[in-house]
Amino acid sequence: MPHIDLPEGVPGIRSAMQYRPETAVHLNALAEQLLRSENTLPPGDRELIAAFVSSRNKTVYCEHSHSAFAAAQLDGGIDLVEQVKQDPDNAPIEPKLRALLHIAGKVAVDGKSVTSADVDAARAEGATDLEIHDTVLIAAAFCMYNRYVDGLDTLQPTDPELYRQRAHLIVEHGYVGSVPVPS
Amino acid sequence: MPHIDLPEGVPGIRSAMQYRPETAVHLNALAEQLLRSENTLPPGDRELIAAFVSSRNKTVYCEHSHSAFAAAQLDGGIDLVEQVKQDPDNAPIEPKLRALLHIAGKVAVDGKSVTSADVDAARAEGATDLEIHDTVLIAAAFCMYNRYVDGLDTLQPTDPELYRQRAHLIVEHGYVGSVPVPS
Repeated sequence: MPHIDLPEGVPGIRSAMQYRPETAVHLNALAEQLLRSENTLPPGDRELIAAFVSSRNKTVYCEHSHSAFAAAQLDGGIDLVEQVKQDPDNAPIEPKLRALLHIAGKVAVDGKSVTSADVDAARAEGATDLEIHDTVLIAAAFCMYNRYVDGLDTLQPTDPELYRQRAHLIVEHGYVGSVPVPS
Repeated sequence: MPHIDLPEGVPGIRSAMQYRPETAVHLNALAEQLLRSENTLPPGDRELIAAFVSSRNKTVYCEHSHSAFAAAQLDGGIDLVEQVKQDPDNAPIEPKLRALLHIAGKVAVDGKSVTSADVDAARAEGATDLEIHDTVLIAAAFCMYNRYVDGLDTLQPTDPELYRQRAHLIVEHGYVGSVPVPS
């Protein structure tokens, strides 16, 4: 049971966002910018970074959600997403994305653990400064979303199918507008 | 030296925000809502939670910044802020704030470590569900800001005086408007 009086039966961050629309509007706007705005990193790759960090933080709701959103936007689908989460070093992805995931995994532990060598390795595979910036901020942001979802002990269903059903809504309509704007 | 080509000589999150105004606008709007909007928790107490979490995460820029912003808005000033960071169990603060800081410190490690007993203890000292919600989200958000600042290896001066000089700007004008809005 959630630690505070969240809307009953609503899972994960959605319950906390319905409870507190004044903060939800900014959390959604940030997610929209990070994961879906125009960017040289495709939305599927950015959702994969979000899923990977959430998996490292063991936040079930966010991991399943962003795995489903990544799968819906990547040719490899959910099989690729699962491979990346389990073994990023050997999953069949581009070297640039692998280097960015390596940085994201370090940010999830502690930003200070990212080294110049990690950044140089990403650059050597073609990553731009902006892509490195956005990777660091996506990883950092999911350390927030994950702690928010876990810290309130929100409802976190474990059936991936429930999350898959929601993926097309996010892919088509995005994060903004999924909660009422505070008056 | 920062990992990417940030504006030279600009410290901490300000350099990253100048580099990427498209994300800065949302990060600042979130900080304004969490730390300065109307709330039964005074702004000084909320800045203290931010400083405390940043101190636990050892992010020098954020710790000094929010310590200065808290000190400027608390009767006990910087001495109280330092006492709270070093020994929250014995610092001269209200029991409700102490219980909320205890929750914030747990969120900084892992949201899953917050227990029903932690939340009950805060409620027993008069904390409302909304105050508990906001404490969890402030702590979670500073796990993001801290990782963002550290993950890019931004410039982080260690002289507290540099941060004190900036406190009145934040107290008077807030977080929104401190960077240009993206076009």
